[in-house]
Amino acid sequence: MVEIAIIGASGYTGGELIRLIHNHPKAEVKSISSRKYEGMDVSKVHSNLIGSDLIFEDLKSDSIDADVVFTATPHGASMKIIPKLLENGVKVIDLSGDYRFRDISTYEKWYGLTHTGELDAVYGLPEIHREEIKKSNLIANPGCFPTGAILATIPLSKKKLVDRIVIDSKTGVSGGGASPSESFHFPNVSDNVNPYNVISHRHMPEIQQELEAFSNVRVSFTPHLVPVIRGILTTSHSFIRENNDISSEKLIKIYKKQYKDEPFVKILENNEIPKLNSVRGSNYAHIGSFEVDETGRIVIVSAIDNLVKGASGQAIHNMNLICGFNETDGLNHYGLTP
Amino acid sequence: MVEIAIIGASGYTGGELIRLIHNHPKAEVKSISSRKYEGMDVSKVHSNLIGSDLIFEDLKSDSIDADVVFTATPHGASMKIIPKLLENGVKVIDLSGDYRFRDISTYEKWYGLTHTGELDAVYGLPEIHREEIKKSNLIANPGCFPTGAILATIPLSKKKLVDRIVIDSKTGVSGGGASPSESFHFPNVSDNVNPYNVISHRHMPEIQQELEAFSNVRVSFTPHLVPVIRGILTTSHSFIRENNDISSEKLIKIYKKQYKDEPFVKILENNEIPKLNSVRGSNYAHIGSFEVDETGRIVIVSAIDNLVKGASGQAIHNMNLICGFNETDGLNHYGLTP
Amino acid sequence: MVEIAIIGASGYTGGELIRLIHNHPKAEVKSISSRKYEGMDVSKVHSNLIGSDLIFEDLKSDSIDADVVFTATPHGASMKIIPKLLENGVKVIDLSGDYRFRDISTYEKWYGLTHTGELDAVYGLPEIHREEIKKSNLIANPGCFPTGAILATIPLSKKKLVDRIVIDSKTGVSGGGASPSESFHFPNVSDNVNPYNVISHRHMPEIQQELEAFSNVRVSFTPHLVPVIRGILTTSHSFIRENNDISSEKLIKIYKKQYKDEPFVKILENNEIPKLNSVRGSNYAHIGSFEVDETGRIVIVSAIDNLVKGASGQAIHNMNLICGFNETDGLNHYGLTP
Amino acid sequence: MVEIAIIGASGYTGGELIRLIHNHPKAEVKSISSRKYEGMDVSKVHSNLIGSDLIFEDLKSDSIDADVVFTATPHGASMKIIPKLLENGVKVIDLSGDYRFRDISTYEKWYGLTHTGELDAVYGLPEIHREEIKKSNLIANPGCFPTGAILATIPLSKKKLVDRIVIDSKTGVSGGGASPSESFHFPNVSDNVNPYNVISHRHMPEIQQELEAFSNVRVSFTPHLVPVIRGILTTSHSFIRENNDISSEKLIKIYKKQYKDEPFVKILENNEIPKLNSVRGSNYAHIGSFEVDETGRIVIVSAIDNLVKGASGQAIHNMNLICGFNETDGLNHYGLTP
Repeated sequence: MVEIAIIGASGYTGGELIRLIHNHPKAEVKSISSRKYEGMDVSKVHSNLIGSDLIFEDLKSDSIDADVVFTATPHGASMKIIPKLLENGVKVIDLSGDYRFRDISTYEKWYGLTHTGELDAVYGLPEIHREEIKKSNLIANPGCFPTGAILATIPLSKKKLVDRIVIDSKTGVSGGGASPSESFHFPNVSDNVNPYNVISHRHMPEIQQELEAFSNVRVSFTPHLVPVIRGILTTSHSFIRENNDISSEKLIKIYKKQYKDEPFVKILENNEIPKLNSVRGSNYAHIGSFEVDETGRIVIVSAIDNLVKGASGQAIHNMNLICGFNETDGLNHYGLTP
Repeated sequence: MVEIAIIGASGYTGGELIRLIHNHPKAEVKSISSRKYEGMDVSKVHSNLIGSDLIFEDLKSDSIDADVVFTATPHGASMKIIPKLLENGVKVIDLSGDYRFRDISTYEKWYGLTHTGELDAVYGLPEIHREEIKKSNLIANPGCFPTGAILATIPLSKKKLVDRIVIDSKTGVSGGGASPSESFHFPNVSDNVNPYNVISHRHMPEIQQELEAFSNVRVSFTPHLVPVIRGILTTSHSFIRENNDISSEKLIKIYKKQYKDEPFVKILENNEIPKLNSVRGSNYAHIGSFEVDETGRIVIVSAIDNLVKGASGQAIHNMNLICGFNETDGLNHYGLTP
Repeated sequence: MVEIAIIGASGYTGGELIRLIHNHPKAEVKSISSRKYEGMDVSKVHSNLIGSDLIFEDLKSDSIDADVVFTATPHGASMKIIPKLLENGVKVIDLSGDYRFRDISTYEKWYGLTHTGELDAVYGLPEIHREEIKKSNLIANPGCFPTGAILATIPLSKKKLVDRIVIDSKTGVSGGGASPSESFHFPNVSDNVNPYNVISHRHMPEIQQELEAFSNVRVSFTPHLVPVIRGILTTSHSFIRENNDISSEKLIKIYKKQYKDEPFVKILENNEIPKLNSVRGSNYAHIGSFEVDETGRIVIVSAIDNLVKGASGQAIHNMNLICGFNETDGLNHYGLTP
Repeated sequence: MVEIAIIGASGYTGGELIRLIHNHPKAEVKSISSRKYEGMDVSKVHSNLIGSDLIFEDLKSDSIDADVVFTATPHGASMKIIPKLLENGVKVIDLSGDYRFRDISTYEKWYGLTHTGELDAVYGLPEIHREEIKKSNLIANPGCFPTGAILATIPLSKKKLVDRIVIDSKTGVSGGGASPSESFHFPNVSDNVNPYNVISHRHMPEIQQELEAFSNVRVSFTPHLVPVIRGILTTSHSFIRENNDISSEKLIKIYKKQYKDEPFVKILENNEIPKLNSVRGSNYAHIGSFEVDETGRIVIVSAIDNLVKGASGQAIHNMNLICGFNETDGLNHYGLTP
């Protein structure tokens, strides 16, 4: 059994890692870290985990005894502990934004932090970077919005079909974390839709980095908070390059080809629309719509669970890749419908 | 007192007309029509109206005794009864789509119906067509999505600032009416976001008609059903014409000027975002965001209550205009927050 | 116009008082107090009130210039300012729990506070204490749960029909106020039902005080937080005294008689069940069910809006009584359905 | 591998059986039946099951080739096909109400149907009837409400502690099935709480049957529909027999002893309250509260997922018992929190 430690295990993504690895055939969580909850049973924080005998510890990054460490720590905290972990020969999967950018200055601009220095990290979107991931010791697990947005649009960029993409995303509230705030106060969220950071969300440059690697495309991104617990529904509006043309049927063909060997991406046909409750709790991404309107706009929609494919499930997928396991180990379950 | 009849009074918009006119100082609902519920107390259908003594009748369009008739009838049904009403000297406010298009062929294309013939109708968006409304006997009350979308973007078209507008709207479920269906089954809607008719919603040409009246602009529209009872949150993504430039501050100035005398439109400053629960139950439209990103995209957001400003409240506003009342009569109440 | 001041105007009940009095024909809010938001426009806190020109002040209780003062202050705070207000000849309607108990020791036991001393307050449930209210200068506005519970069960106590009543209430989250906390964090409330203080809620002795005034009855109370913004649905399970008997029809007769002149209480017949969205935003209480099972249990259900009939609407009803206005002034509007 | 057929596989419980058995180490779904969807891919109905190659068939009960058949058929339909299945040597787990009553006349009274005749069925609540289940070929899988209610209160009946139990249950909408209706129309459910069948729900006699087996106790039951997708939160109010006494600590001791070897029942201490999102998607039942008030009322609360522990998960637990598998096979995963 591969032994796992989780740093920052008291948050939603930490809880999901424990939940999912519990059913993994080849990995086992051995220790979980949280300064705040040190000494407490895991179930006092994650009420679904009653029965687990894990107890929060205050782990020190220089003495962690594990094969793989997941850092589910805040932006800025990860980069302070990861270099030490790597030195000690541990493989690291980082769920923060600290190592997602190939250009440190982009990180510093959008996150407003000084970076402690580049490391040899791979952007952990298996559908795009599988082979590099397998060889890496440090995976920068993608952001939740970028996962949904990139999967929905990267074939368009690869095919150089469009010159502008507008990502209009709708996220469940769990994406904002477990800490209460006015934005997540039930009466403010329920029966409401809240756009936020409409032109300035830090996931925008992450989407842009991956899409621009294939062609020159202008990317805009606007997230919305919706009264949903889990899930990101991404509506992408992409504009066909001048003098180009594309049909719905052709688009489906391109997407089916692009993702044909992917265990966690499903292409819906016949203009079917993905649903959040088809992927809830699972590592699947569903992609559908594939419509083209008379103004030259392509609409492609994706659905993921922000805490699974958008965070902890994808992190486990990355672990499976770097450890040489079957890609679907521990992730081979369907979504929760209804 | 102006005497009112409502045809199609058993639906949500019918119920809202009764609720709102109950507090109108100069108008009174005298009769309500519903073939299905003939003879029943209004409160058997609209449970909030306990205490009202209205009873559903099966009114005949050629013998209605009223000063103003609201037709809250389905598309296709309105155009069969309205000519007769007008002949009898009644003023009509139609909440269906039957008279919203200046070009009948657009209606026939998008609604798949043969029209019974043009009438001298005015598109009842007071903020744009106030003076024509005052002189008309037949008001085509705007669709719910178009109300939110047009108010959010028409100043851009008037100023010829943009050449493409993408409307990404999020609507509450009451917009779909009171009849149960799989799409509105609680487990299918809750914890979900459902894009539908992503390139083919019939409210698109309605938005286009009003925006194109001022400048040449390509309009795209994609609606989403969100787990909300009431309200439409419209996110508009508009693209600045080449060689143009505009700032957030300048946009706010334009919008404040455009709407300065409007009793029901409020412009939010400082990048504030409108909220559905600020307008719930009220006739207000809140417009905000006014952000411009580096790709030349303008984001403007509006919030309305789909059943009030998007339907019955706006219909009463139109009644106030054609009857010479104060514009805010019966509509002078705040939204329900939280 | 009667001039109103509101102390503690930044909370939900404060916002509701302003919203409702805005449409009152004989009263006007002249000043609103909030230390925290002093100097800010009311709409910065209550986003629905855009258009109002009220500004938060830091009012001092000894210099308030108003005919009626609503104290929407926390428990413990009200009793520190109300004596001074009364001395200055102001009429006071207190929305806290400070003056609800006829016996101070009950207050001190359940609220854990030392009381500053009894005053001549009347428990402001108009359906029970109308005549005393009219003559009083200090109204203790009832708690939200007690309002729904007492209206649903007091005829049973008056008729000495039952010896035990179990109140199982379900409340919307606005009952918990506008401040974020773990209990009201959207992912903890949504898709969930949370019983709390299952035997120890401080609204229990308030219910007991009013019911026991008419007969000897054991009262139990368990509240639940449900994923609803507004409204309290009270399910009362009452047990018929030994050797007694009662039918559904007889119960309805008793309730109709008890409430026949009440403008805000509606009795539903034919085993109809009250709905929260029939009373949403309104001052109505709907009472229904009236079923009796084979074990001798009576089930009576009531629905109110916790912020209106359960707080601010009832407070305005009380103001109408002490000022000699029509009882329905400012409250004569229907609930928001759907 | 044990081969499974599911009759009535298009409903929610059918979908859950497929979802859960997908991860079962020793059983496999070989065929699924639905007359309506014959020939269609399973994912056209259960959108989460994209990737499965199951296709709906119109199976005939006399020619089903399977080791175990789950009948997820409506009440009244099961009893028409089960005798034939048993004759052919198949083991049957019935999710309908047809075989839950030891006395056929109770069934006929509450279900309004004529029964086709008693069979040797065992009531499939493993925590109570484990040994009989192991030896049976026909399991009557318990109703969703009874599962939550019986687990919460049966130790009280066993110990003869109480003489009356009032079960006030709150259920998610999935309990009502996948078919749209006015009761499940989103605007009618959302922001609402709907008591129904307040004294006459057919799950009442089922609860009564199991509780009365141990002592003489009067049982009352009132269900409520809450705006939740999955889950049943049961609040039980039980009244201590005269001249008896019990403490919270003693109750916890009794419950811990009763359920100490149960893999799927967790007892919460320190007055903790079970949460629906701790058990969502899982087969666990959480039981907590254990409070006793001054009137002699005991409050015990349980939480289950109505589609898993309240239906399909419990059915699989029963399969594990009759097939001699480990009890937790296929069910060994945590709930989905948040």
